[in-house]
Amino acid sequence: MDLPESIRNLVVQFNRLPSIGEKSATRLVLNLVQWHQQELGVFSKAIEELGKLKKCESCRTWSDEYKCEICSHPSRSEAKAICVVESINDLMAIERSGHYKGLYHVLGGVLNPLLGIGPEELELNLLFSRIQSLGITNIILAVNPSVEGDATCSFIKDQINDLSVEVERIGFGIPMGGSLEYVDSMTISKALENRKGF
Amino acid sequence: MDLPESIRNLVVQFNRLPSIGEKSATRLVLNLVQWHQQELGVFSKAIEELGKLKKCESCRTWSDEYKCEICSHPSRSEAKAICVVESINDLMAIERSGHYKGLYHVLGGVLNPLLGIGPEELELNLLFSRIQSLGITNIILAVNPSVEGDATCSFIKDQINDLSVEVERIGFGIPMGGSLEYVDSMTISKALENRKGF
Repeated sequence: MDLPESIRNLVVQFNRLPSIGEKSATRLVLNLVQWHQQELGVFSKAIEELGKLKKCESCRTWSDEYKCEICSHPSRSEAKAICVVESINDLMAIERSGHYKGLYHVLGGVLNPLLGIGPEELELNLLFSRIQSLGITNIILAVNPSVEGDATCSFIKDQINDLSVEVERIGFGIPMGGSLEYVDSMTISKALENRKGF
Repeated sequence: MDLPESIRNLVVQFNRLPSIGEKSATRLVLNLVQWHQQELGVFSKAIEELGKLKKCESCRTWSDEYKCEICSHPSRSEAKAICVVESINDLMAIERSGHYKGLYHVLGGVLNPLLGIGPEELELNLLFSRIQSLGITNIILAVNPSVEGDATCSFIKDQINDLSVEVERIGFGIPMGGSLEYVDSMTISKALENRKGF
């Protein structure tokens, strides 16, 4: 015997999500069968609503409106700094720190020629035109450290070299509360390289 | 800044599923935002369809129809054995072994007075009336070993004592491919207890 069709169909959908294999998907669906029909309706509706999500036309972050909360915020929209991040997750992490009050540009990935991700896919032209139209003076590259991330940062720096904008990359080193004993050697090398007068 | 409302709403829904915390839920939803609207429609529809799932009126397993595949199967519906399992997962596991060709009764749990699960919740009356109406001669209790599982088995045996039905429980011991070295002592005790002439 096979599982009922409606269960199998939903297992296929859950199985498409990252880190959810067929077994986990089945377990999730067999939990869902115990939900009330009305609760399933709410879940189903929430997924459908997600299709209406937009990308902010300025910074390309996911937003319910055509202009996101940050780009339409009165004080932030006058900021002269743009922080370049890979994803909305990274943006949210920076927001949680409460340390940054400027604008963002969400790349949605990093340059990766093997996967066909070039400057067009990251909508870098939008970033360059915003720098000019908003009179941006500072670019903070908060791209994660990786070969592709480093290449993306170099590419952006090259392209805006003649726009008289200060380009900086966030600092890398030992995380706060971290212990040298447990930190990988790449990070220790970076921390030594990035040492500052004390 | 907060995540857009449509993302947050869906995170709440995923977060209700077992073993999916808020972080995992957010990660899943941020993967879903990259799906095409049409694909989201298919997912949403599959969840809605789940609300139409029924319980087989004979054996109480989840089914698309009022009578499940097994109960309506010509050769199986004439079987004189009922295998009592806790859930459809356990039923599927037995089906995969290909060793059993009789009928089932899916309890949907085990007796647990603390959680308010009594004989009515497990629809045991349905089991007892099926035993009489179908002329069942064998009951195989494939309930998982636990305090509540053991109590449930004893309860069922007591109730059908005067129906002249043979009641057996599946064997417990070392799993095939298992190694005595890594098996817990409860299982070893059970395996010694359940030894057979060789």
